[in-house]
Amino acid sequence: MRRASFLPMRDLPEERVMNSFEFSNPVRIVFGPGSASKAGALAAPYGRKALVVTTRGSVKRLGILDKVIKALDEAGVQSTVLSGVDPNPRLKTVYEGAKICREFGADMLVAVGGGSVIDCAKAIAVGALDDGDIWDFFTQKRQPQRALPVVCVLTISGTGSEMNANSVITNEETDQKYVLRSPLVYPKVSVIDPELMVSVPKYFTACGMVDTISHVLEKYFDGTPDTPLQDRMAEGVVQTVLESAEILKRPEDVTLRGVLAWASTLALCGLCDAGRGMGAFDAHTIELEISARYDVAHGAGLAAVQPAWLEHLCRKRPEKFAQFAGRIFGIHRSSALEAGLEGISVLREQYRKWGMPVTLREMNIPKESLGEIAQAAHKSPRGGHLDPDEVLDVLTACW
Amino acid sequence: MRRASFLPMRDLPEERVMNSFEFSNPVRIVFGPGSASKAGALAAPYGRKALVVTTRGSVKRLGILDKVIKALDEAGVQSTVLSGVDPNPRLKTVYEGAKICREFGADMLVAVGGGSVIDCAKAIAVGALDDGDIWDFFTQKRQPQRALPVVCVLTISGTGSEMNANSVITNEETDQKYVLRSPLVYPKVSVIDPELMVSVPKYFTACGMVDTISHVLEKYFDGTPDTPLQDRMAEGVVQTVLESAEILKRPEDVTLRGVLAWASTLALCGLCDAGRGMGAFDAHTIELEISARYDVAHGAGLAAVQPAWLEHLCRKRPEKFAQFAGRIFGIHRSSALEAGLEGISVLREQYRKWGMPVTLREMNIPKESLGEIAQAAHKSPRGGHLDPDEVLDVLTACW
Repeated sequence: MRRASFLPMRDLPEERVMNSFEFSNPVRIVFGPGSASKAGALAAPYGRKALVVTTRGSVKRLGILDKVIKALDEAGVQSTVLSGVDPNPRLKTVYEGAKICREFGADMLVAVGGGSVIDCAKAIAVGALDDGDIWDFFTQKRQPQRALPVVCVLTISGTGSEMNANSVITNEETDQKYVLRSPLVYPKVSVIDPELMVSVPKYFTACGMVDTISHVLEKYFDGTPDTPLQDRMAEGVVQTVLESAEILKRPEDVTLRGVLAWASTLALCGLCDAGRGMGAFDAHTIELEISARYDVAHGAGLAAVQPAWLEHLCRKRPEKFAQFAGRIFGIHRSSALEAGLEGISVLREQYRKWGMPVTLREMNIPKESLGEIAQAAHKSPRGGHLDPDEVLDVLTACW
Repeated sequence: MRRASFLPMRDLPEERVMNSFEFSNPVRIVFGPGSASKAGALAAPYGRKALVVTTRGSVKRLGILDKVIKALDEAGVQSTVLSGVDPNPRLKTVYEGAKICREFGADMLVAVGGGSVIDCAKAIAVGALDDGDIWDFFTQKRQPQRALPVVCVLTISGTGSEMNANSVITNEETDQKYVLRSPLVYPKVSVIDPELMVSVPKYFTACGMVDTISHVLEKYFDGTPDTPLQDRMAEGVVQTVLESAEILKRPEDVTLRGVLAWASTLALCGLCDAGRGMGAFDAHTIELEISARYDVAHGAGLAAVQPAWLEHLCRKRPEKFAQFAGRIFGIHRSSALEAGLEGISVLREQYRKWGMPVTLREMNIPKESLGEIAQAAHKSPRGGHLDPDEVLDVLTACW
């Protein structure tokens, strides 16, 4: 039986049965303007001592962190703060967090931030209760057996980490950026308060939009037949993001912030993927090798890699791309390949209009590094099926 | 803050804040051809003694019931059977089931059937642990405090009961057909095996399709602004059902059965409604008063009432109906009202093509009873906002 993406990969047997899947997602979403004020009361049932994980920047500057700490305090939850989480969170930060948890006696994690912060909190939640090498869970040597509860206050949308069981961490010593997947790291509660997002800069807003679209499209094009409803849901996410691009001109529009946040949450909660294959997160797999090595925002890396990867797939199996081009952009051609390629081209043009770099050159990725990146993608836990030569072709095409 | 529909109604405060909601749905779905064979292993973690609830008819005849009992037995779960559940399940059956649970010492319910059976099992799950009048939970005098776990094996799709916290029961003494809503009655696991559905007759297949469409459309048209993604998801459900109508010619198509079942499950799991108002299940509220009184399948009653109710709403707020007509049927007119009414008319025509009665007259509902039905709808727990005169107009229009 095939399973949705949030379950551990090793549970997956080889055969592909038509549309069989498991779906369950226990995360409690509390969504709405002002909902962050409830973070303390929402977190209190899960613990008395919280490690609050956050970034360095705006979360502090805008007073969001102070408000969450105050809300926790008022709900009787003591807290201490780990505030150095990088945009591509590092393994050393996970170790640091796990150590603080033990010293402080934390019995839960509260993540205040975006996907990087939540991913880091999830990894700490596992690491705090583990005496071994935490990286084992990312290389899939071991599966987590227990984890502290995680509560999220989302401040920037895109990764969908607030409603899934994934954590992406970079091992800075080995240049590996890998994924831990375990039902144990589903957040207990995720607060999605669009008012917290109004100050997210245009660039990172666009990064989140590209990431959201990638999350659904990489699965959408995985070749699984007979998924009409999943297709409609995925298309709905893409259309909603495309139709919300006005946010880049009106960053303080709380309604649009909310729409984009919800699209991003649903994009990777397992629903749009139910019954699809487990693999086929290939543009992500390739991009992670780029942002593991270079100071590139994940969404920006995807804006270059993902359309190029889709063009590569479209040449192999154009029919689904024609469906995409027709339904999303109203492009209808007698040749499926032609329609599909035109659709991808229009999508890339949207990314460019949003201010995204759509070539690796614009992001200062050295052309000489492409071969190494292709090899690394092939060697990564999710990349075994990738042909390094094909990946190199794709990287060269979007360089 | 507004909440998704599966939460108890009384939690809802008066003010309507833009798009605020809570979403969580803990049901574990195990979907796929052949998945029913796992029912025993899936149920075993929840209890050792199960009351198996089912209908009289095909579930027994086709051997499905025997297979489930055998699977439970092999997983070490003892069981006894309550097999008399009617299509519109009765309160007396709930009492009977609760009594058997106590005598047998059941610690869980296993529902083998469609929405009626699952709804009945949910009510028994609450009733078995309650010494008072179970009907209190339906009239909302009391809220359930505990319930036995429920595991479902779905054999006919449409109601969505397998992934929500609702139970609809008819009180045959008072002619009331009311809804219990409590997070306690979410099924723990629901097995959706499309192979079990291939023998569902054309008529009841069509009933399920109409019910599914009603579940999303009644909310879709509730007037809540700023729900673009929820709209896309609702439209995706409607489109998927419309595009799967071929099932009525190829009833044994397991793939199409699966597609329809998944559409029906997602239609009422809270996702398509997240952030919409709590009310606006008005066509349902009205129809329940019909099928409480007359021997009418719920979906058939809806095939008449729902388009008429939508026409009534369309005359008040045509814009959203124009969106619906345009996106679902490609109908674009300069007048929103004209487009909307044309869209509803095409929808009704689909129902008719599927073999559904689309007038109350065809279902032998006496015209003289319409006034009483309208009054009863107004007096029902969810109907207080309904104007009996308006309801009577709608009923007369679709008589």
